[in-house]
Amino acid sequence: MIATNAYAAQSASAPLAPFSMERREPGEHDVQIEILYCGVCHSDIHQVRDEWGGSIFPMVPGHEIVGRVVKVGSKVTSFKEGDLAGVGCFVDSCRTCANCKEGLEQYCHEGMTSTYNARERDTQLPTYGGYSTQIVVDEKYTLHVSDKLPLHAVAPLLCAGITTYSPLRYVGVGKGHKVGVVGLGGLGHMAVKFAASFGAEVTMLSSSPSKEADAQQLGAHYFALTSDKATMKKLANSFDFILNTVSAQHDYSTYLNLLRTNGTMIVVGVPPTPSQVPAFNLISNRRSIIGSLIGGIKETQEMLDYCAEKNIVSDVEVIDVKDINNAYERMLKGDVRYRFVIDIASLK
Amino acid sequence: MIATNAYAAQSASAPLAPFSMERREPGEHDVQIEILYCGVCHSDIHQVRDEWGGSIFPMVPGHEIVGRVVKVGSKVTSFKEGDLAGVGCFVDSCRTCANCKEGLEQYCHEGMTSTYNARERDTQLPTYGGYSTQIVVDEKYTLHVSDKLPLHAVAPLLCAGITTYSPLRYVGVGKGHKVGVVGLGGLGHMAVKFAASFGAEVTMLSSSPSKEADAQQLGAHYFALTSDKATMKKLANSFDFILNTVSAQHDYSTYLNLLRTNGTMIVVGVPPTPSQVPAFNLISNRRSIIGSLIGGIKETQEMLDYCAEKNIVSDVEVIDVKDINNAYERMLKGDVRYRFVIDIASLK
Repeated sequence: MIATNAYAAQSASAPLAPFSMERREPGEHDVQIEILYCGVCHSDIHQVRDEWGGSIFPMVPGHEIVGRVVKVGSKVTSFKEGDLAGVGCFVDSCRTCANCKEGLEQYCHEGMTSTYNARERDTQLPTYGGYSTQIVVDEKYTLHVSDKLPLHAVAPLLCAGITTYSPLRYVGVGKGHKVGVVGLGGLGHMAVKFAASFGAEVTMLSSSPSKEADAQQLGAHYFALTSDKATMKKLANSFDFILNTVSAQHDYSTYLNLLRTNGTMIVVGVPPTPSQVPAFNLISNRRSIIGSLIGGIKETQEMLDYCAEKNIVSDVEVIDVKDINNAYERMLKGDVRYRFVIDIASLK
Repeated sequence: MIATNAYAAQSASAPLAPFSMERREPGEHDVQIEILYCGVCHSDIHQVRDEWGGSIFPMVPGHEIVGRVVKVGSKVTSFKEGDLAGVGCFVDSCRTCANCKEGLEQYCHEGMTSTYNARERDTQLPTYGGYSTQIVVDEKYTLHVSDKLPLHAVAPLLCAGITTYSPLRYVGVGKGHKVGVVGLGGLGHMAVKFAASFGAEVTMLSSSPSKEADAQQLGAHYFALTSDKATMKKLANSFDFILNTVSAQHDYSTYLNLLRTNGTMIVVGVPPTPSQVPAFNLISNRRSIIGSLIGGIKETQEMLDYCAEKNIVSDVEVIDVKDINNAYERMLKGDVRYRFVIDIASLK
């Protein structure tokens, strides 16, 4: 077994604190990764605080993991010691259902095995995430990471990146499209970068005037203040796509009204209670709403390769692990531009 | 002017009663149609009772019109006296916006001119619908009707038909798809016929066990009772498409859960208040919801031609116009299989 330092929550009301655990020795198909950076996702907070129910404690969060391979199993073919590697939101799935076979492991019929707050399919032992020094993962669920990009800024691509990349690709965003991005946070800032890089004209839709400069620096062509009624009226029926990253309760019709005929709103945020959808807002212009969850392994690799080619990374604030509880408080206030990333050296 | 017998409501609380009015003499581009049959749509009731607001009285409802051309304007090229003709939900639109130019007049940026309960674009005079003996319409908004099908059963195709045909075509329903149809009424029974004719495997989802035999006779391959929890559980994640025709308030998630990965629910009914949509139901399987409104002139013609070719018509109960108020009461109880059609001879 591999002694591993980590940060864990012992209960839904406890702060994260140092935790010692063991990882399995790499099996034939496993790679052992020395973690270098781990991004901090808003879903870490939800799960640590058991806001979605069913949390498993102690919990080591973290599913935006990058590091270096230090050991590989005897049958591993695609990684070798010394390679950079990444791990995203899941570390296993059934591998046999139609979705797994199609590379849509995130929609596995049996449910994907999350990187943390889940149980391994064989042993039923809890999975522990990336707020830790080591992780052991089947090579099939491990991503290749380019050495061209700053590693700390790559980490959030494993969740915030693929969560926005995947639906923008699925709906076919490209040149000639007008795309609105709602909410400038961890997901929103990546959505702006990707949509702009795909050739779309991007408008940041935000309730915070203070974010205008950032939005433009991230690549947004326009900025619209959602509290400004005149602006919202002017933008009615104008977007081909809106990527809505908001997880707070809100009325979908505010944004549906901004879609042109045949326009689509992509939702990637999960508000705590169901959202209101007036059928008329959909019917009156053949509008649609689509939900999307992260991305499969194949597409996550495609996204990482694309980022390396296009020099796209996340905007991050690197922290020591001891500052994680404070980081959570700041995230809840929206006080991060735009992703905290833990320097795992601070755990050693 | 052309003296015309009609049935009209004088106010939101008045029953429909005989009404005399005049139609304009056909202009250069107009066709004058002697109406033979007019279908009775649920939206007739909503508008007669001013349930959507803004109703114009006196109101002559009716937008599922078939008849025979009795006169054409000097510049009319596509119709001649004696032709069968149809008129659907709108009789005009701006003709210049991007949607009109694309044949999506129902989404005209200036708003289509409805066949009744609207105002003519030039004169601002009220439009009067098909519960009448004559109508005069620009040839561009008039449809060709085949003589191969029973005319009374063709009338409902002009609204119930195109409302279901258009979205099933738009999303690409065809061979190999599993399609659920929610609600077996005027729209639902046409949806079953079209989806089956496109080669899909069709399941009728209904709360009325009494409709099972009808559903199968209409072409549904399976029938599922929505109140049966075991059946609904078994059907989870199984449909590629669901066409939801229900206008009563209901929880969309009941049906969203039945969609497989990448599945789409089409909504054509407009419940009186917004529906609840839990984002998780969309996100967990990349599901989508799309709204659709009738269809453009070009596609309505395509649908009528398709029906003539495939021998598809509506299942109707033909009534005399004097029975219209009773028909409304029966429709409100769901007591019609599946569309009332007024024999306009009873108005003469």
